[in-house]
Amino acid sequence: MIKDIILSANEAKIKLFSLDTNVKNEALLKISEEIEANKEKIFEANKKDLENSKVLLEENKITKATYNRLKLDENKMRDMIKGVKDVIKLDDPSNKVLWTRELDENLILKKVTSPIGLIGVIFEARPDVITQITALAVKSGNAVILKGGKEADNTNKIFFEIIQNALSKVKDFPKNAVNLVFSHEDIKEMLSYDDYIDLIIPRGSNKLVQFIQNNTKIPVLGHASGICHIFADESAEKDVVNSIVLDSKTQYPSACNSVETVLVHKNYKYLDELKKYLTENGVKIIENPDTYSKEYSDTILTLKVVENLDEAINHINKYSSHHTDSIITNNKENAEKFMLMVDSSCVFHNTSTRFSDGFRFGFGAEVGISTNKALARGPVGLEGLCVYKYKLFGEGQIVDDYAKGRKEFHHKDL
Amino acid sequence: MIKDIILSANEAKIKLFSLDTNVKNEALLKISEEIEANKEKIFEANKKDLENSKVLLEENKITKATYNRLKLDENKMRDMIKGVKDVIKLDDPSNKVLWTRELDENLILKKVTSPIGLIGVIFEARPDVITQITALAVKSGNAVILKGGKEADNTNKIFFEIIQNALSKVKDFPKNAVNLVFSHEDIKEMLSYDDYIDLIIPRGSNKLVQFIQNNTKIPVLGHASGICHIFADESAEKDVVNSIVLDSKTQYPSACNSVETVLVHKNYKYLDELKKYLTENGVKIIENPDTYSKEYSDTILTLKVVENLDEAINHINKYSSHHTDSIITNNKENAEKFMLMVDSSCVFHNTSTRFSDGFRFGFGAEVGISTNKALARGPVGLEGLCVYKYKLFGEGQIVDDYAKGRKEFHHKDL
Repeated sequence: MIKDIILSANEAKIKLFSLDTNVKNEALLKISEEIEANKEKIFEANKKDLENSKVLLEENKITKATYNRLKLDENKMRDMIKGVKDVIKLDDPSNKVLWTRELDENLILKKVTSPIGLIGVIFEARPDVITQITALAVKSGNAVILKGGKEADNTNKIFFEIIQNALSKVKDFPKNAVNLVFSHEDIKEMLSYDDYIDLIIPRGSNKLVQFIQNNTKIPVLGHASGICHIFADESAEKDVVNSIVLDSKTQYPSACNSVETVLVHKNYKYLDELKKYLTENGVKIIENPDTYSKEYSDTILTLKVVENLDEAINHINKYSSHHTDSIITNNKENAEKFMLMVDSSCVFHNTSTRFSDGFRFGFGAEVGISTNKALARGPVGLEGLCVYKYKLFGEGQIVDDYAKGRKEFHHKDL
Repeated sequence: MIKDIILSANEAKIKLFSLDTNVKNEALLKISEEIEANKEKIFEANKKDLENSKVLLEENKITKATYNRLKLDENKMRDMIKGVKDVIKLDDPSNKVLWTRELDENLILKKVTSPIGLIGVIFEARPDVITQITALAVKSGNAVILKGGKEADNTNKIFFEIIQNALSKVKDFPKNAVNLVFSHEDIKEMLSYDDYIDLIIPRGSNKLVQFIQNNTKIPVLGHASGICHIFADESAEKDVVNSIVLDSKTQYPSACNSVETVLVHKNYKYLDELKKYLTENGVKIIENPDTYSKEYSDTILTLKVVENLDEAINHINKYSSHHTDSIITNNKENAEKFMLMVDSSCVFHNTSTRFSDGFRFGFGAEVGISTNKALARGPVGLEGLCVYKYKLFGEGQIVDDYAKGRKEFHHKDL
């Protein structure tokens, strides 16, 4: 039963709404220091997780990639500590005035950002995620309930204790802002608290994301699949196409922003060269309409020759997961049309789809990438963890005066 | 079966992404002119609806208020035509660059607004809504599927024909951008097309909104209930409290932004005067904890005396529908704390809750008021009908160069 955790996190959420940026930064500094001071304890806990996972690996219950992601070493630890410290330098995204409008004399309306509130984050067995999400939550003023992959339970637990200990040393910071739960039952229960939880961020397999989308009324930030496209237009340059397609496919084949389908204009002259280049570099090419919705997560891609730009746009709007799609062309008009009409979070011109990432976009870090248009869209960093509220300041004005015509709005932007 | 309508609207949606503002404005002008030219036909159709509804009214199947809202007269028609023309003057909210960042030399990222896409709008039997929503959709570049209250079927149908006729006269405007469906079965079918419809906006009873929220995976923009609060602080002035509370309750008691619960600081000196003033003006006062979650939609309100500001904030965060809550106080610090910590879309100081409205906020018009924090929040006008996408412009850059340290991001805001 995690009801008590949720009620307590809900209290913290209200306190966080008015927390000073200095207090948040102090909390981040304290967290980074306490992790630094307790490295050995963390490595010990991680060792336990690794031992348990080695058995799972030998039984083929987890992949080598999962095992490697679970593993902490000095380098990863240093990056994690640096990651927390880096968030101190980022702007506090909450309580920012987006605009001010005078509705009438002394009746002032402000659109102001505010933290979202209480966020549930469900993530894979990657210990670096717990510090990254915690840092973003602390800085944006959101309370979080974290649930990590069970293979990392020991590591997550020690990180959680260290974070709690750090937060309890910061005057005015509600340490119940950061919470950790463990079981699959906890997830199910969490998904039922739509009255308390404002947003769920699932990170992990398509299956996990789909399960969550289908089992909660809470808004879900994320994406179930990453079917990204590259369109090589008639005027594209050979070297640019070869290099971008290879990078988009092989730089990290299991990433959500790696390319799955390459569309090539029928008049593009270097198709054979592209095929040869990819094959030589270990990429398998499939030319079969049955694979248009396929996310390979491997060094395989679908290739299709299209008649023109319109066919490319239509194909992408039909099969894309609205994540990231790129056009390679020397024709500016075509690039502009593609970027306007492709209905995806990220639309690129002459670059690799792999650039679609919070760090690369300069967001400091990201909590996930959203393909939902009614939520923050694309890589979601600090800014995406805030919403806005309207503040209206008056001196006793009533609506009846305006409804009856005794007064009139003048709506002047300040 | 509305599948064909949805597929056709989906094609229109892509065309709308790149439509010029002038074309949208021409469409709005043409719609307003065609309505003007066909007024008599509209009155005739409306007369039929009114005759049918008169029977329903006599059988107590609809309320007098519903009957009145259905009725069109010269004044209402003039306002509707003016409403469409007014949207021409509003800024086009799509394709606006929100910020530009140089990630590296010649690798430029832009965050740009874009229409949401295809929106389903389900509304009550109010003919003025069809022109208002159509105007906002046309200007923001969204395709819409409209379903109006069945009592207005004849009126809606003639408006739809006129709008279609107007749009077909505008070169380049896809007339399948605006669609009308009729039956309750159509709603059910619409809710299942989460692959095609980007957003549902239900306007109407709590029951309708809840039905929709519970029966679709499409994001829903709206609010099921409107439980708004006023907190009269210790330092509030008598006349201001009396006037704001009366306006908030009686100016339009069935509106979602009318006040339901008034919280009064225990040291506020004029509580008896407030009670007397409200009673004299026909407002019934209930003092019973069972009513804290009650939306009266009538000239009745719940009254509660609270110990202090914190109790008021906690009460509101527990019982408010996160719509609109107002504090009346001469203490600026208290006002600021209230406005930070009350977790609602609209938080007001020294004004009536009734100001929470798209027209009054200067949005021109509104499609609804959203209490969902993961969507546009508060009154949603043109701006709330757009989302953003990221556009990245490069000259062949690949991620591997950055991952391997051969190049470095410099992230400069332009």
